[in-house]
Amino acid sequence: MTVITVADVLQGHMPTNSKVTINGWVRTRRDSKAGISFIDVYDGSCFAPLQTVIDSSLPNYQHDILRLTTGCSVSVTGRIAVTLSRSKHKHYEIQAQEVEILGWVDDPDTYPMSAKRHSLEYLREVAHLRPRTNLIGAVARIRHILAQAIHRFMDEQGFFWVSTPLITSSDTEGAGEMFRVSTLDLENLQFTADGKVNYAKDFFGKEAFLTVSGQLNGEIYACALSKIYTFGPVFRAENSNTSRHLAEFWMVEPEVAFATLEDAASLAETMLKYVFQVVLNESAEDMQFFAERVNQEAINRLQNFICADFAQIEYTEAINVLQKCGQTFKNQVFWGMDLSAEHERFLAEKYFKVPVAVKNYPKHLKSFYMRMNDDGKTVAAMDVLAPGIGEIIGGSQREERLDRLDMRLEEMGLNKENYWWYRDLRRYGTVPHAGFGLGFERLISYVTGIQNIRDVIPFPRSARHVNF
Amino acid sequence: MTVITVADVLQGHMPTNSKVTINGWVRTRRDSKAGISFIDVYDGSCFAPLQTVIDSSLPNYQHDILRLTTGCSVSVTGRIAVTLSRSKHKHYEIQAQEVEILGWVDDPDTYPMSAKRHSLEYLREVAHLRPRTNLIGAVARIRHILAQAIHRFMDEQGFFWVSTPLITSSDTEGAGEMFRVSTLDLENLQFTADGKVNYAKDFFGKEAFLTVSGQLNGEIYACALSKIYTFGPVFRAENSNTSRHLAEFWMVEPEVAFATLEDAASLAETMLKYVFQVVLNESAEDMQFFAERVNQEAINRLQNFICADFAQIEYTEAINVLQKCGQTFKNQVFWGMDLSAEHERFLAEKYFKVPVAVKNYPKHLKSFYMRMNDDGKTVAAMDVLAPGIGEIIGGSQREERLDRLDMRLEEMGLNKENYWWYRDLRRYGTVPHAGFGLGFERLISYVTGIQNIRDVIPFPRSARHVNF
Repeated sequence: MTVITVADVLQGHMPTNSKVTINGWVRTRRDSKAGISFIDVYDGSCFAPLQTVIDSSLPNYQHDILRLTTGCSVSVTGRIAVTLSRSKHKHYEIQAQEVEILGWVDDPDTYPMSAKRHSLEYLREVAHLRPRTNLIGAVARIRHILAQAIHRFMDEQGFFWVSTPLITSSDTEGAGEMFRVSTLDLENLQFTADGKVNYAKDFFGKEAFLTVSGQLNGEIYACALSKIYTFGPVFRAENSNTSRHLAEFWMVEPEVAFATLEDAASLAETMLKYVFQVVLNESAEDMQFFAERVNQEAINRLQNFICADFAQIEYTEAINVLQKCGQTFKNQVFWGMDLSAEHERFLAEKYFKVPVAVKNYPKHLKSFYMRMNDDGKTVAAMDVLAPGIGEIIGGSQREERLDRLDMRLEEMGLNKENYWWYRDLRRYGTVPHAGFGLGFERLISYVTGIQNIRDVIPFPRSARHVNF
Repeated sequence: MTVITVADVLQGHMPTNSKVTINGWVRTRRDSKAGISFIDVYDGSCFAPLQTVIDSSLPNYQHDILRLTTGCSVSVTGRIAVTLSRSKHKHYEIQAQEVEILGWVDDPDTYPMSAKRHSLEYLREVAHLRPRTNLIGAVARIRHILAQAIHRFMDEQGFFWVSTPLITSSDTEGAGEMFRVSTLDLENLQFTADGKVNYAKDFFGKEAFLTVSGQLNGEIYACALSKIYTFGPVFRAENSNTSRHLAEFWMVEPEVAFATLEDAASLAETMLKYVFQVVLNESAEDMQFFAERVNQEAINRLQNFICADFAQIEYTEAINVLQKCGQTFKNQVFWGMDLSAEHERFLAEKYFKVPVAVKNYPKHLKSFYMRMNDDGKTVAAMDVLAPGIGEIIGGSQREERLDRLDMRLEEMGLNKENYWWYRDLRRYGTVPHAGFGLGFERLISYVTGIQNIRDVIPFPRSARHVNF
């Protein structure tokens, strides 16, 4: 007798009539008048549950089987049977010979995960049980497939995964609200003579924060191994309660030495197409569910994305397009403004109708580390905008020339001393290099069609939300 | 003309005589009296540098080539040549036709990464440049290969990667020093009527910390998807400055539903053997370097590990063995004591001479969530001890019975209310489940033979160390 998964049975990995055991949880129970019960069992290995057929002749039929409710855990031993539907679709089930109840559901009437449909808001309140639902289970599998696809793509392309630090004493953006990390006893703080908190007494001997990006550290490794990527959590202490913001989320940040902005744009295109193809190949059943229940376009738009040639446009040209398109926007269009979601979506969805990389933004809109263009007004930054979601990737060529970098640091009022090691990379064998950041949750949101990124991360953290 | 990597050339991926460009950094330069310079160029794609042969007839020979020093970045275009050594070993090189200098080294005499050997302690002080060394470059590639191997193994075994939260309001171990995460203005704290800090004003509306383990959250997903693993950073605010402790490190934590302690032990064995085999297959050149320069046993012991059948021993029996072995230990041996490093290494290295899983420890040594054995004295915990390093994995079967769990919470003075969601997993379709934790840096340390784990993580964090 072999213990196998529901997926093993439903994907036909085992010969018909083999005797097997599957372990899982009851999705639903149906009793026929003929004295047979049908119990759908899921174990998370795939979207569909497995039907188990239980005859009333089983010794614990009356006592156990007829009491089973949604969520009970069972171990079912029996033989695999297969029938052909009218459409020649194979239907697998288990003819049970033994059903062991592993765990009951306490007071089934109040079980928070009853078999009915629940709102996403409600499910967030029971994040410890929501992966048992069809929706959140499917999200979890897609999340896994996407993460695997990213690691595989990067590996195949010769990139090395680098784990950049989470706790940091530097601030990547020179902006961005950060969380403080401390072991100080806040009820007994010690102060210096001038009334400041004495961080010399803190764990790290100075102020420390949670990082907002691994990029600067990633550049260190790109300037030694040529092609690296980070894939790890980053943090923003922004008090914005929107469906697009989390205090803790995962980022993918490739960084490539000897590369230009065009190389980064091309890498972004290749990578996104690769991972979308993997999802379509390996998560067909889960994607079908998202297309049926969440967003009709979920599959189509990935297919279109894969087939499309990305458009490219200069920021300056994009402003022209927006000014002349005849469409009215809430936010006025002028050279120097940052593109809003409405502008981004117009460009991707109406004007180009394919994903588009907007390049070379005014320098005042972007960070100090982006490479100054010869016009002295723009920097080599790019945003990739996708139909249906807007900005999905942001990147740039980095400033590899020490004199220009120092100029930008000064312009932005940043202290050169704090960037001593970043400047060293430009003093010692500097190279042109470029990279981008992809918000992993935004990617999952795009793939699944789920709008609120709180529903595509297992345990969302945001202002006033840190349960579980 | 094609841009390729040093690895592409050295692994013979390109036909001899093809014209190619490689980009990288100068490792060394040697000038022959005949007016030819040999420049070894590395780009991080593999261990060995590529020799480029530069004739003095190149227009920038006098002005550029003869000024090249270690660390300069270059772009070399030329034809691939191959010669056979006496031992029939193929030796690839590039006959340069053009050498472009991309970046000089500022004041070469003070370049911190000069071509001589540096101490590990020194290299930590220049963590932004150390990946350019042979040693730290090799560590980075091994780290990548190990991470990939773990993801691949887990995926092949049907596990789903789950990202458990880093910021948490709960404390996995009921012990373990934690870092506070806060956005409170420490210079202007607000207090409640009874003189406590008013955390209602903090970002999350209550106290929040950095997690010490993803396990409890991992159990949530195992109780829905059956087989999951985490692979992410965890934190310990321990003020211990040893070669085995970091404030921030990466953990792999598989969690399996419908599994016992034996299943977890068996998974640990299969996983370790798998990843070690991958390293031997895919990192032969880097491993050769570690065997030559760091630990002679580096390769042998992985090979032995792969071939060995793991031993298993009960904690109680292990105490017997240690008491009767005739060896004198610094720490007295008695039932109820925790095994020290000396005991662990004796068992693995002298007694069994293979990796050994020690099982069923006295309950007072272990955490509240471990499954109580029928003897009422021990819990279903295991530690995997490996020759040459000691404990490499710690795991347990989790207590799936609510009444026993509640008993343990009470015994250990923990508040049931704080574990409401963990208890819910036992109220609703509870299942036997088990898992373990593998410290990723400890694994790399074992593979490479590098003793101090500060040297196997890109940017180590520990008490008073948070630079870069």
